[in-house]
Amino acid sequence: MTDAATNMRLKLPIICFILQIILIILFATLVQYDHETDAAAWHNGSHTSEYENDFYYRYPSFQDVHVMIFIGFGFLMTFLQRYGFSSVGFNFLVASFALQWATLMQGFFHGMHGGKIHIGVESMINADFCTGSVLISFGAVLGKTSPVQLLVMAIFEVTLFAVNEFVLLSVLGAKDAGGSMTIHTFGAYFGLMVTRILWRPNLDKSKHKNSSVYHSDLFAMIGTIYLWMFWPSFNSAVTAHGDDQHRTAMNTYYSLAACTMATYGMSALTAHDGKLDMVHIQNAALAGGVAAGTAGEMMLTPHGSMIVGFLAGIISVLGYKYLSPILEEKLKIQDTCGVHNLHGMPGVLGAIVGAVTAGVATRDVYGKGMADVFPDVASGDVEASYQGVRQAISLAVTLGIALLGGLIVGFILKLPIFGAPPDTICYEDSIYWEVPEEEEDAHDGQLTVVRTEETEKLNN
Amino acid sequence: MTDAATNMRLKLPIICFILQIILIILFATLVQYDHETDAAAWHNGSHTSEYENDFYYRYPSFQDVHVMIFIGFGFLMTFLQRYGFSSVGFNFLVASFALQWATLMQGFFHGMHGGKIHIGVESMINADFCTGSVLISFGAVLGKTSPVQLLVMAIFEVTLFAVNEFVLLSVLGAKDAGGSMTIHTFGAYFGLMVTRILWRPNLDKSKHKNSSVYHSDLFAMIGTIYLWMFWPSFNSAVTAHGDDQHRTAMNTYYSLAACTMATYGMSALTAHDGKLDMVHIQNAALAGGVAAGTAGEMMLTPHGSMIVGFLAGIISVLGYKYLSPILEEKLKIQDTCGVHNLHGMPGVLGAIVGAVTAGVATRDVYGKGMADVFPDVASGDVEASYQGVRQAISLAVTLGIALLGGLIVGFILKLPIFGAPPDTICYEDSIYWEVPEEEEDAHDGQLTVVRTEETEKLNN
Amino acid sequence: MTDAATNMRLKLPIICFILQIILIILFATLVQYDHETDAAAWHNGSHTSEYENDFYYRYPSFQDVHVMIFIGFGFLMTFLQRYGFSSVGFNFLVASFALQWATLMQGFFHGMHGGKIHIGVESMINADFCTGSVLISFGAVLGKTSPVQLLVMAIFEVTLFAVNEFVLLSVLGAKDAGGSMTIHTFGAYFGLMVTRILWRPNLDKSKHKNSSVYHSDLFAMIGTIYLWMFWPSFNSAVTAHGDDQHRTAMNTYYSLAACTMATYGMSALTAHDGKLDMVHIQNAALAGGVAAGTAGEMMLTPHGSMIVGFLAGIISVLGYKYLSPILEEKLKIQDTCGVHNLHGMPGVLGAIVGAVTAGVATRDVYGKGMADVFPDVASGDVEASYQGVRQAISLAVTLGIALLGGLIVGFILKLPIFGAPPDTICYEDSIYWEVPEEEEDAHDGQLTVVRTEETEKLNN
Repeated sequence: MTDAATNMRLKLPIICFILQIILIILFATLVQYDHETDAAAWHNGSHTSEYENDFYYRYPSFQDVHVMIFIGFGFLMTFLQRYGFSSVGFNFLVASFALQWATLMQGFFHGMHGGKIHIGVESMINADFCTGSVLISFGAVLGKTSPVQLLVMAIFEVTLFAVNEFVLLSVLGAKDAGGSMTIHTFGAYFGLMVTRILWRPNLDKSKHKNSSVYHSDLFAMIGTIYLWMFWPSFNSAVTAHGDDQHRTAMNTYYSLAACTMATYGMSALTAHDGKLDMVHIQNAALAGGVAAGTAGEMMLTPHGSMIVGFLAGIISVLGYKYLSPILEEKLKIQDTCGVHNLHGMPGVLGAIVGAVTAGVATRDVYGKGMADVFPDVASGDVEASYQGVRQAISLAVTLGIALLGGLIVGFILKLPIFGAPPDTICYEDSIYWEVPEEEEDAHDGQLTVVRTEETEKLNN
Repeated sequence: MTDAATNMRLKLPIICFILQIILIILFATLVQYDHETDAAAWHNGSHTSEYENDFYYRYPSFQDVHVMIFIGFGFLMTFLQRYGFSSVGFNFLVASFALQWATLMQGFFHGMHGGKIHIGVESMINADFCTGSVLISFGAVLGKTSPVQLLVMAIFEVTLFAVNEFVLLSVLGAKDAGGSMTIHTFGAYFGLMVTRILWRPNLDKSKHKNSSVYHSDLFAMIGTIYLWMFWPSFNSAVTAHGDDQHRTAMNTYYSLAACTMATYGMSALTAHDGKLDMVHIQNAALAGGVAAGTAGEMMLTPHGSMIVGFLAGIISVLGYKYLSPILEEKLKIQDTCGVHNLHGMPGVLGAIVGAVTAGVATRDVYGKGMADVFPDVASGDVEASYQGVRQAISLAVTLGIALLGGLIVGFILKLPIFGAPPDTICYEDSIYWEVPEEEEDAHDGQLTVVRTEETEKLNN
Repeated sequence: MTDAATNMRLKLPIICFILQIILIILFATLVQYDHETDAAAWHNGSHTSEYENDFYYRYPSFQDVHVMIFIGFGFLMTFLQRYGFSSVGFNFLVASFALQWATLMQGFFHGMHGGKIHIGVESMINADFCTGSVLISFGAVLGKTSPVQLLVMAIFEVTLFAVNEFVLLSVLGAKDAGGSMTIHTFGAYFGLMVTRILWRPNLDKSKHKNSSVYHSDLFAMIGTIYLWMFWPSFNSAVTAHGDDQHRTAMNTYYSLAACTMATYGMSALTAHDGKLDMVHIQNAALAGGVAAGTAGEMMLTPHGSMIVGFLAGIISVLGYKYLSPILEEKLKIQDTCGVHNLHGMPGVLGAIVGAVTAGVATRDVYGKGMADVFPDVASGDVEASYQGVRQAISLAVTLGIALLGGLIVGFILKLPIFGAPPDTICYEDSIYWEVPEEEEDAHDGQLTVVRTEETEKLNN
């Protein structure tokens, strides 16, 4: 494994240092504390209590989202038997870059004040959201890409994410607080297109590594459960203060619970011999959070949320069972984590639910709260039905930008300079990490590990 | 393992889908957003700031409780060597059902407004609390029940929990914010009675699986530590705003710290050869949280909390060491997780401490804060000493309903239609889950895993 | 392993019980609820809303800090192959003692009101902070000390921590909200001196245990990621309400992200064969949080924070790669976790950054917010440049007290009565814990575990 092509000795330091120095220069030039994080500005402002600082409204949600990004996504992908270091570790690296870059890109498009990008807790949440989208795409190419490829992907994907988000929220006037479209649909279809372009005809040579072991499945459940628990915070993190945050969290809570019931039922129904399949439990049970991403802040009603989650769970398990094999064989889409089933289809479902729920909104149901959820409808600029049309157009735009973007970025990532692993050593930490080797230690009859030259040779 | 009796192909989907559809119908008929989650209602209300929405008072505590329910309980039970999938996975399934059902049951008894159940963050916390009780009972029967049995148990236990809670809090006027009685005592004695009825005379055939391995003990410590850290949030989650939440969290913090000291001392004192026993550390160190469940919101004083925690730790270790074997041999109570030691005895201790602390409450100590903690004493309706009597009666009622309920439900679960595992395959994931098998991979000298027909046959 | 010297049968219970009983007596004598946790006092006070209770400003941050102390530190140290029980378990024990003792010691020095120590959420955070310092020192001696030694160390270290903190914050008027000096520099150099005094010339006999295995590295990553995610809460937990908490959290967020980029780059650049080294990722990526501990609350600017984090990451990896071997060989400092690289040098860097940032503070930049960050500068008592001098002196004082304290405590811990492990059985759980043994189970072809007398004999 001393292959020059995959050696990261220079490639990784160069990209890390250059990117970080560029980030520092751009931050120095463009970024300022916002009104609520700047000492002088906040103390000059008029507020009756320190509580009016947005920090107290949003920081607990931010931390929950942060856990989802770094623990949730990171550990969810540790299910592979020998790819745990890379799953958690590359997730960590890519997210650390993406959240800084997203601050700039999102700031360009909707955070400029007098030529400066103003930042605070809400921009931090949005940066984490954008990062989540990149990590979804990472799930599609998991095990088949070098860390340099992932950073290059993040550069472009974050940029396109910000463009798409700007078009949806600012140009089209759509609502998508929990990101069924902007985060999940975008990240999934972008990643699927990238993995399609990166198709590896000889990937079956690494096939025996593309599966789980007992303990790796338990590590993955840490990721699953954290994502599941904190999804109510995710969907409500940037909704309006008051009833909106409250309602969004609760809708998501019930959507997820119903989704879990559907997932267990469908898994036993479709899996081998009536036994539950960990792949379904780890992934499909989360589809309810994805599908409540757009409509969660609306008056979806608790039972409406449950129906959405229930359908999302069913669709997602069916996708894992029947659609993924077809995508791989017929369309040459090697989707390691099945992001199409967890983020793609449930994201589209969520977008549709959002369009319908927006289309049927009435003043009776929303009262003065209409101004928070659908400001253009409240102001009389548009009818509710037209808001629904906006939402539907937004889905189409998202799919278009994601697929086109993924196509271009996929070809960029094919350039043979980024240290991609060969087909024979995919899903394998030891190509990019120093991995301790296991060896029978005669002294105490237990499995212990020592790094010996022999085992290193064996691997080479 | 293709035994028709334990095959979940139809049993599990049928119960999951039927239950979820019933839940959706009942929610559609009966459940509404409350004043603080409904867009029109909140915006019609009079509030000086969005901060008055209860979301901001309670949502961080809710999320901590949520982590305890799904990560805490789930991973605490992964200590068994080959039952990690079921521990986390069935915990996940049962909790997802129970929290929905609890919303309805608790709503019937104390959340009805004009024929509708109103829900918000407080009802979500209470639903999670009720779920916790079911998961305690799950701990008693861990490894010996099918997921269908667990769902059936949850249906009845949630209902009886809501009845008991109604009697205690609304009829008797007891206080039990952290649930020493309603959650811990109830869940433990209910589960102990169920496992007594489900007694398996030939369980020793699965005995070699009823123990831990090195890594499973570490996974279990994730559960332990999360329960320990967030117990202050658990006990304070539904107490009154202000000093009450603040004081309850702090009392619990000190109770747990003292309990941990007692646990380590007692474990070294009683365990084999002066060595610490993971079973004690994983469980008894939590007894301080259970025991502070009732009195935590009262003026227990910090040192009072420490004394309670200290005693709870001692009692709990002694229970694991000396009482559990007796319960198993003499009373035929096979208590897998030792819930009697972690939730049963400490719950009773907590109830007694609560009764005494309530009985000696004075206006001097509580001032105008008496109205928050003991409204009936503050209003002059009852004397403090009588409040103590109410608390004591509540303990007796709880024990009665739990034991009687567990008796009946135990017999229901004995019906041979729920797919219970045979005595020879208890504590074993592979009966209900597709489990990856481990096999020596000659190519790289490491343990890797492939699913082969051979290993499957071996297991059958 | 039935050696009388290391047997904990009496030693551990005696110290646990005596310490806890002393704590209870001292709490009963000296500690009271503060204004915000006391029912009568809070209800007598004047506040327009329950929200003014400090609980709502700080409790979410407290819980994040709590997770860092118990999960973060605990699991970070599980990287050793056979020391996971002790890492998490002794961390749990020592922290449970230290937080109680810290409440008293810190209360003596800056929490006395009419002869009583008043406690609430801020004292809880400070107690956790002090505990963190002890756990840093634990990292230096990890694997080489008995739990009794650790408790004895905690008794003295907490006391000296409180003295140092008093000198810095109250006498010298320094600012150090996130504890670059008081927590990290102090804990690291104290621990390094202790481990120097406890130097073991024959430690190479346990050398094969002083390394990781695949899964232990993944458990350690749980610790790393939690520390990383919640460090913004750590640094901001006790800063002033409003913009200060908000700004501190954000500065730390960017410092950590930049640090992670630097860490990955440096690791690939310096490690064997261009591969990433888990030791760097697990530790150096956190140095950005340490280094932002003092200046995080100041107007460091986002790009300033990123520069600080970037430098911290570089220094930390270089320390692991080049300095640690020198410290061990030349200075006889056996620093198990490399706390010098994670807490020592980055702490000193953070102190210097804090001194410089304070020294250049201007009224233009801080406005009326100056009163929160530098009250003495705001009141005109001192110039900003002199505040910088104070900060620099504080660093020197901290180093002096830490090194001198570590020297004395090291010699105390050398007393042969505390059950320290022999050189041949360091980094080994089984000396203090009942550890399940692994054995090939012929029945199902899987690795399973049973406790047999044979394996116990083998170990002895």
